[in-house]
Amino acid sequence: MATEAAGSDSESAPDAYTDLLQTYKRVANVRNAGGLLSWDQQVMMPEGGNPARSQQLSTLSSLSHELLTDDEVGEQLDELEDADLTDEQAAVVREIRREYDRAVSVPSELVEEISTTSSEALPAWEEAKAEDDFSTFAPYLEKHVELKREYAEHIDPDKDPYEVLFEDFEPCLPLEQAEEILDELRDTLVPMIEQIREEGDDIATDAFTREGDYPEGDQEELCRDVLSTLGYPWERGRMDTSSHPFSSGTMFDARVTTRFDETDPLGSLFSTVHEFGHATYNLGLPDEHYATPLGEDRNLSVHESQSRLWENHVGRSEAFWNVLLPSFKEHFPKAEDVTLQEAYEAANQVYDDNLVRVEADELTYHLHIIVRFEIERALIAGDIDVEEVPEVWNDKYEEYLGVRPESDSEGCLQDIHWSHGNFGYFPTYSLGSVMAAQLYAAAEDDIDDLEDHIAEGDFEPLHEWLTENVHRHGRRYETNELVVQATGEDFTADAFTDYVTEKYGDLYDIDA
Amino acid sequence: MATEAAGSDSESAPDAYTDLLQTYKRVANVRNAGGLLSWDQQVMMPEGGNPARSQQLSTLSSLSHELLTDDEVGEQLDELEDADLTDEQAAVVREIRREYDRAVSVPSELVEEISTTSSEALPAWEEAKAEDDFSTFAPYLEKHVELKREYAEHIDPDKDPYEVLFEDFEPCLPLEQAEEILDELRDTLVPMIEQIREEGDDIATDAFTREGDYPEGDQEELCRDVLSTLGYPWERGRMDTSSHPFSSGTMFDARVTTRFDETDPLGSLFSTVHEFGHATYNLGLPDEHYATPLGEDRNLSVHESQSRLWENHVGRSEAFWNVLLPSFKEHFPKAEDVTLQEAYEAANQVYDDNLVRVEADELTYHLHIIVRFEIERALIAGDIDVEEVPEVWNDKYEEYLGVRPESDSEGCLQDIHWSHGNFGYFPTYSLGSVMAAQLYAAAEDDIDDLEDHIAEGDFEPLHEWLTENVHRHGRRYETNELVVQATGEDFTADAFTDYVTEKYGDLYDIDA
Repeated sequence: MATEAAGSDSESAPDAYTDLLQTYKRVANVRNAGGLLSWDQQVMMPEGGNPARSQQLSTLSSLSHELLTDDEVGEQLDELEDADLTDEQAAVVREIRREYDRAVSVPSELVEEISTTSSEALPAWEEAKAEDDFSTFAPYLEKHVELKREYAEHIDPDKDPYEVLFEDFEPCLPLEQAEEILDELRDTLVPMIEQIREEGDDIATDAFTREGDYPEGDQEELCRDVLSTLGYPWERGRMDTSSHPFSSGTMFDARVTTRFDETDPLGSLFSTVHEFGHATYNLGLPDEHYATPLGEDRNLSVHESQSRLWENHVGRSEAFWNVLLPSFKEHFPKAEDVTLQEAYEAANQVYDDNLVRVEADELTYHLHIIVRFEIERALIAGDIDVEEVPEVWNDKYEEYLGVRPESDSEGCLQDIHWSHGNFGYFPTYSLGSVMAAQLYAAAEDDIDDLEDHIAEGDFEPLHEWLTENVHRHGRRYETNELVVQATGEDFTADAFTDYVTEKYGDLYDIDA
Repeated sequence: MATEAAGSDSESAPDAYTDLLQTYKRVANVRNAGGLLSWDQQVMMPEGGNPARSQQLSTLSSLSHELLTDDEVGEQLDELEDADLTDEQAAVVREIRREYDRAVSVPSELVEEISTTSSEALPAWEEAKAEDDFSTFAPYLEKHVELKREYAEHIDPDKDPYEVLFEDFEPCLPLEQAEEILDELRDTLVPMIEQIREEGDDIATDAFTREGDYPEGDQEELCRDVLSTLGYPWERGRMDTSSHPFSSGTMFDARVTTRFDETDPLGSLFSTVHEFGHATYNLGLPDEHYATPLGEDRNLSVHESQSRLWENHVGRSEAFWNVLLPSFKEHFPKAEDVTLQEAYEAANQVYDDNLVRVEADELTYHLHIIVRFEIERALIAGDIDVEEVPEVWNDKYEEYLGVRPESDSEGCLQDIHWSHGNFGYFPTYSLGSVMAAQLYAAAEDDIDDLEDHIAEGDFEPLHEWLTENVHRHGRRYETNELVVQATGEDFTADAFTDYVTEKYGDLYDIDA
């Protein structure tokens, strides 16, 4: 059985390595069990199950923490500092060391306090959003900022605290590099969007809205067909619905969820393709390294690069719509008059006045992210106070996106992330999109006629390229190194800016 | 929140008690997480997920074992031996002590070996059954018998090893008492069934088969309606399908599964009502004692008493069919001519020539169990060898049931249990049915016009009686004491023999 071989090179490994890996596997299995419990909570669990489920999750979380921070783990890591290890073994030790160091440096009381604050902040955020009253949520955001500063101080008192927090989500991509990318994004996109609005041609946006509603059951069938077309292996996955689409699991069992809006068939479609991208990453991790760092994903930006690559570079391409549109019309005969060009335009329109991140298009999306990134950096640095957030938020929306929210509900209260105390998470969304562009450009260079393959519904060459260059490495390489291995270049925003300049230049007939 | 109060009397408890309960809650939460993983494996998981799932389950299982057998648990239990405890606290300590003593006495290598043998025995049993060749399975059965004798020796070398194994499933019901019950069952049922066959009236058996097939989707709707009618709280449960119906969960989330056979609408119906009975027990356990012995079920026979009470005493009664038949006809208009008497007779027919336990009726069922009980006792005692099992099985079927299997597939290979090395499990099925009769008789005494309530679709008085007298106690009482508390009498087969004598005497017009 494939999994028997996990830690495949353990025969030639020092005992400390074998023991360390054994412990890590237990940690990973407990975490994966927790992942399944969370999936069930969001997809299957009856609402009454929460009191028991939250205790189960909390027990699993504390157990995996205890296993990871066991004194023996520290001793084994020390012993392996100067040991003679293979590259793979060295990567495993590096990854466990990073997790261990972080886990032991934060007092459990503080972890507990952050967890409690999140539990209290969530309903406060929900209430604030429902009642459009930022002041209900502000004290909890304030508390989170304080606790997270303290948290960062424990981990590394000499580092910019925001950088420490960013590393929770992106442990091996330097913040400086990330920031350069985000700055370039902003400097490219703000004028480009302005130019599209002022000089761009009118494009068709109503291909899928002019015919009325699309029943949920038919949308579901279409999404299942699309997953099959893309090559989703149903024997290792399943699709369900949840209030927020997500993917979860391992290479043996990588599930996706979606949600349906009867007025918007593109919503479920693109969210399904997006989650499919996440799932392919999990599925492409090597079976034989299950429950070890070599069988786990290289953090959020790489994960998001896979979802965005499939969603944007495949799903929003003309080539893909060549395959999709006939299938769409089979499920929805009323769309029979929609042309390929209309479909392509509707799938790629740049919105004039959207205020909501999760409804944004491929260009404006990143400005939503950059607003959040700049605000949370300033908050953690103490450059702005919590009470200033709504005003700063609205000013930045006006500056970058040309629209000003009229309420906090459609402004700074729209996302759940800060209620969890997650600062440093938002940038990974944009970094993933940017990485997707760089990876896709490299795949186009390496694969003969990739666009033709896609237009014929043949996704195998792309799957193979991604598995070979990204998935199969797990956490063997750090983030930039993984990108270099795959593309021959450092991770930058260049490929992304080239991509959007060409694509949207053509689409809106502008010379950006 | 209800669960905050778990270990409600901890304020007045010794520290050792508080600490012990805290550890036990972690054990229970890990077990419950494992329960959810198993549910998912049988109901939701794509087939490819097994390699990861089995590792996750194995990790959770070893973790809960390690938590339970921690030295500190032993010290706390010792310290509490002479402590001043409330009745509830004393019951908690008694239950944890019993689990702890058993867990620490078996070497982990032996536990591992039994687990490995089960993993190997399962495919061997499947192959043996498929190819009708007992010899493929025999070596694994032999190995299980040896290992389980060794296992019992570790736990108590001075006790009948079968008794030790029985206690794995029924830890606080003396085997002697169980055996008396099973002997009385055999002595009552063998002649009764013979008399029915020789002297009984012909009854209508084709009420639900004469009209052809029943589509699965309609059966599922009927089962959901029946669950709603019986009072299943959907906010704390769900119904799905699986290859073998089962129930699982806690008082917050008690799920059931069923399966459908389009030629047999009674199959899914009774299995749904059966699993509903199990679920009501879980649901009736006190919220505030979640993850403690007072919030857990009193083992298998009591659990089975709840499923059999609802399946047989409610589900197969004329009063219930008074409610069910109109609903059945709404879902299946083709059954409009079926009369109440025909439905009742079809639901209670005693089979002439059935060889399969899971398809047996309310009377012959117990003889299937007694055959297994007598054989596994003799195997563990060394009174028969594994190679003799097929012959002894067939002889006993002929003697007790008047039918002789023509192959091992429909004989001693029909059940999965022995492939898991589970000896001592089978009797709990019959003990549960017998207990159901005693509990139901007591409920009839206590509740005015219980039958009328049921005939009107009012199940609330019965729910209340069962919650009050059985469910809410969790593991506070040992098995016989629980029955005494609920019925005023020791646990015997008397109520069951009275019940079947009257019911089947009337039905078949015999004077049993």
